[in-house]
Amino acid sequence: MGTAFDTARSANHALAAALPPGAWLTGEACAPYLTDVMHYQGNALGVALPDSVAQLSALVRAAVAHRVTLLPQGERTGLTGAAIPDRSGAQCVVSFTRMKRIRHFDRVNRSITVEAGALLSEVNRHVEAAGLCLPIDLGSDPCVGGLVGANAGGSRLVKYGSTRHNVLGVEAVLADRDGSVLDLLAALRKNNVGLDLKQLFIGAGGANGLISAVSFSLAPIERSSHTLLIALASYEAATSSLMAFEAAFGELLSAYEFISATALRRVAAAFPHITTPFADSDAACFVLVEIASGMPGLDSLLEARALEVVEALVDNHAVLDAVFAQSERFWRIRDSLPLAVAQDALPLSFDISFTRGALAPFLVETAQWFAAQHPSLGYYEFGHFGDGGCHLIIAIPLALIEQYGPMRQIVLRRELYQRVLRHGGSFSAEHGIGPGNVAYYRKFVPPVVQVASGIVQRALDPHALVGRVQY
Amino acid sequence: MGTAFDTARSANHALAAALPPGAWLTGEACAPYLTDVMHYQGNALGVALPDSVAQLSALVRAAVAHRVTLLPQGERTGLTGAAIPDRSGAQCVVSFTRMKRIRHFDRVNRSITVEAGALLSEVNRHVEAAGLCLPIDLGSDPCVGGLVGANAGGSRLVKYGSTRHNVLGVEAVLADRDGSVLDLLAALRKNNVGLDLKQLFIGAGGANGLISAVSFSLAPIERSSHTLLIALASYEAATSSLMAFEAAFGELLSAYEFISATALRRVAAAFPHITTPFADSDAACFVLVEIASGMPGLDSLLEARALEVVEALVDNHAVLDAVFAQSERFWRIRDSLPLAVAQDALPLSFDISFTRGALAPFLVETAQWFAAQHPSLGYYEFGHFGDGGCHLIIAIPLALIEQYGPMRQIVLRRELYQRVLRHGGSFSAEHGIGPGNVAYYRKFVPPVVQVASGIVQRALDPHALVGRVQY
Repeated sequence: MGTAFDTARSANHALAAALPPGAWLTGEACAPYLTDVMHYQGNALGVALPDSVAQLSALVRAAVAHRVTLLPQGERTGLTGAAIPDRSGAQCVVSFTRMKRIRHFDRVNRSITVEAGALLSEVNRHVEAAGLCLPIDLGSDPCVGGLVGANAGGSRLVKYGSTRHNVLGVEAVLADRDGSVLDLLAALRKNNVGLDLKQLFIGAGGANGLISAVSFSLAPIERSSHTLLIALASYEAATSSLMAFEAAFGELLSAYEFISATALRRVAAAFPHITTPFADSDAACFVLVEIASGMPGLDSLLEARALEVVEALVDNHAVLDAVFAQSERFWRIRDSLPLAVAQDALPLSFDISFTRGALAPFLVETAQWFAAQHPSLGYYEFGHFGDGGCHLIIAIPLALIEQYGPMRQIVLRRELYQRVLRHGGSFSAEHGIGPGNVAYYRKFVPPVVQVASGIVQRALDPHALVGRVQY
Repeated sequence: MGTAFDTARSANHALAAALPPGAWLTGEACAPYLTDVMHYQGNALGVALPDSVAQLSALVRAAVAHRVTLLPQGERTGLTGAAIPDRSGAQCVVSFTRMKRIRHFDRVNRSITVEAGALLSEVNRHVEAAGLCLPIDLGSDPCVGGLVGANAGGSRLVKYGSTRHNVLGVEAVLADRDGSVLDLLAALRKNNVGLDLKQLFIGAGGANGLISAVSFSLAPIERSSHTLLIALASYEAATSSLMAFEAAFGELLSAYEFISATALRRVAAAFPHITTPFADSDAACFVLVEIASGMPGLDSLLEARALEVVEALVDNHAVLDAVFAQSERFWRIRDSLPLAVAQDALPLSFDISFTRGALAPFLVETAQWFAAQHPSLGYYEFGHFGDGGCHLIIAIPLALIEQYGPMRQIVLRRELYQRVLRHGGSFSAEHGIGPGNVAYYRKFVPPVVQVASGIVQRALDPHALVGRVQY
């Protein structure tokens, strides 16, 4: 009859038939796969649970034949909703929870090949005894398919680069008639044989093809480290202090993470049991400085050198105070901030980045503008100062929710992004593009870049069947 | 009239008209641009010398309108002929020798944006006083457009990654009707806004579009270092020694470069004035170990720790001898090898790579096979053991040139590449794909990868007008 219902039914049958029994969920069984940590919510034709790349390829062939959109999904830890289907009920979720195998760990090569559903923590547990790690340091524990699809950054990017820098190979299934499997997994560090196609799947947010496995380069575990928390007179002082630590430690500077004094006080007020250092400090912000190396036996040298650096910064009035800190305490404070804000306010979160020198002027100017324009809202800054990354939380007190309704929130977000762009920054530093922010992609990315991106995406995925976003 | 001659004449006029006076060379003036270090040789419709991205875009518009192929060309230091036009005389060379500007150096951000024609050495000179460097360590001095187009690797890849790992941004001109300029130069370390299009130009060998400028991430200059040369009992010992140095120094291991005993003796015999260490050693090969850090003041600690590592390796009979060496001497020996071979033989060069553990078995098995099959030819190995990279030179004595004619050379090359692939290796580790090796690309790269590469390339360059190779 050709009705939409018949079409959906025949697609449903075809996708179910492509998979073994129990690997195709419909109805109520789909529920856990239709929402995520950010409360994005959708409907699905069904959820596929392939167990192998062969099953995945068979699924893709059926989906292409029936023009069903496929949404690769891992642990649903993404923050832009890219892994959650829309509300049509016509899209198919492809969960990688059954593809978690460690295919090959090569200690001599410092590399590992794992299926897309393996967790970051599982990879690290597997290689730890060999003195190795996958040095992507995140608050969440995504599967590697999501990690690579999002090109996650995290707190140690200043030393180790983004996920892209740690990927040696990718296996991906293309949404063509054959469900072609691109095996680009060779764990070679030098391999310039034509176009490096794997780059097209890294950071694509699930577009272009379905990542089914990844080869990573591993790093030696840190054997020496020193961590301190410093109180800084201003954001400019945070920049000059970054320069001083880099001059003293070079590539050994492994994290340089900041939190504003306002944010620290918000956590202290909300959670009195979390002891915060520098409670009555005049500092503008606090920075966790982590220095680390895979070379063992440097601990006391790093500590002594750090002390010299801090003393010089205190003499310059850049640093007001310092404690030699366990980083866990800092992460606890930082991770508590969203919860503290949510106690009595609606948080609007921003994930932005700048060149490192542009970060401090942006923070200073924007805080002034914000305080003048929105004196009754909360404004909290933290993030990855060492790589120019910054997270902002604007807190709308619950009492002001009507005054700051959805339209005004959108205006506020646009105003803030325009300030970011004027400072040469990015409006999505780490979290990628999904339904949560694709409108800003359309608005802010130059048309020529959008056109070229669309051309590339349609070349690989001509029926627009993979991922939530058409670039 | 529509003859080929008229077509060429009208294309010539159009390209000349797109450029200012003096920026379009024809006839004899083209000669320097038609050959390279490897003696590839071609003809050209003309040579364009754009001075700006606006001129480059105008040139591309004219070339697209007249369907003229454009070959981006830098310093002609590539080894596969990708920058040299074919013999048709219908292609246009685009030389970047007039686009050498440093557009922006940002010390705080550790980044620099330069035009494609700037030399690697010029970039390094510009940033040296600020204590920074672009840590790509090559024997040649390419311009940055060539560096990025080739995704050069070099000797310090084990610490700093390939060129791709050090690129923050690219500006490229697309071969579309408008000569669209993609400005992807933002020097941001975190920026996940849609597809990372710049990756499509890195390592593409000049295909997909014309790289006109690049933003690089810079590294702190090495402030501490220690270098030693060790004599190893076998290639397996070279692998276990690599593991020992990495366990002791982690990310501070900055180079681990090898040369075979046969190769060392060949240099010593050809150039008696170049003193070679370990002249009468029983070693299978020699490795230059370089340990370095941007953290100052570690020299004596690195030396002491290196001595401990060497002593343990001597106890294990892995290392036979060691000298604390200046690296210049090693590079001099290594760089003299091709000249030594060329004194009385025709050299066939190979640029291959493996996972690190696969390198030693390949070297051992292949040397045995080669000695049995071709006892009268020379066989020399050297390269980047620490990242799995290897260069081979097979020397055909001039007296045997007739016996080893072109067909037999091709057979030999194919046999060797097939051994490389059986060991999971790459037949072009660093040098990319050009007319010199595209036949092996066609033969050895899986069809599904070639098809996908062609689809992407044609999406960006629908008339196949940029670069020598259609993937």
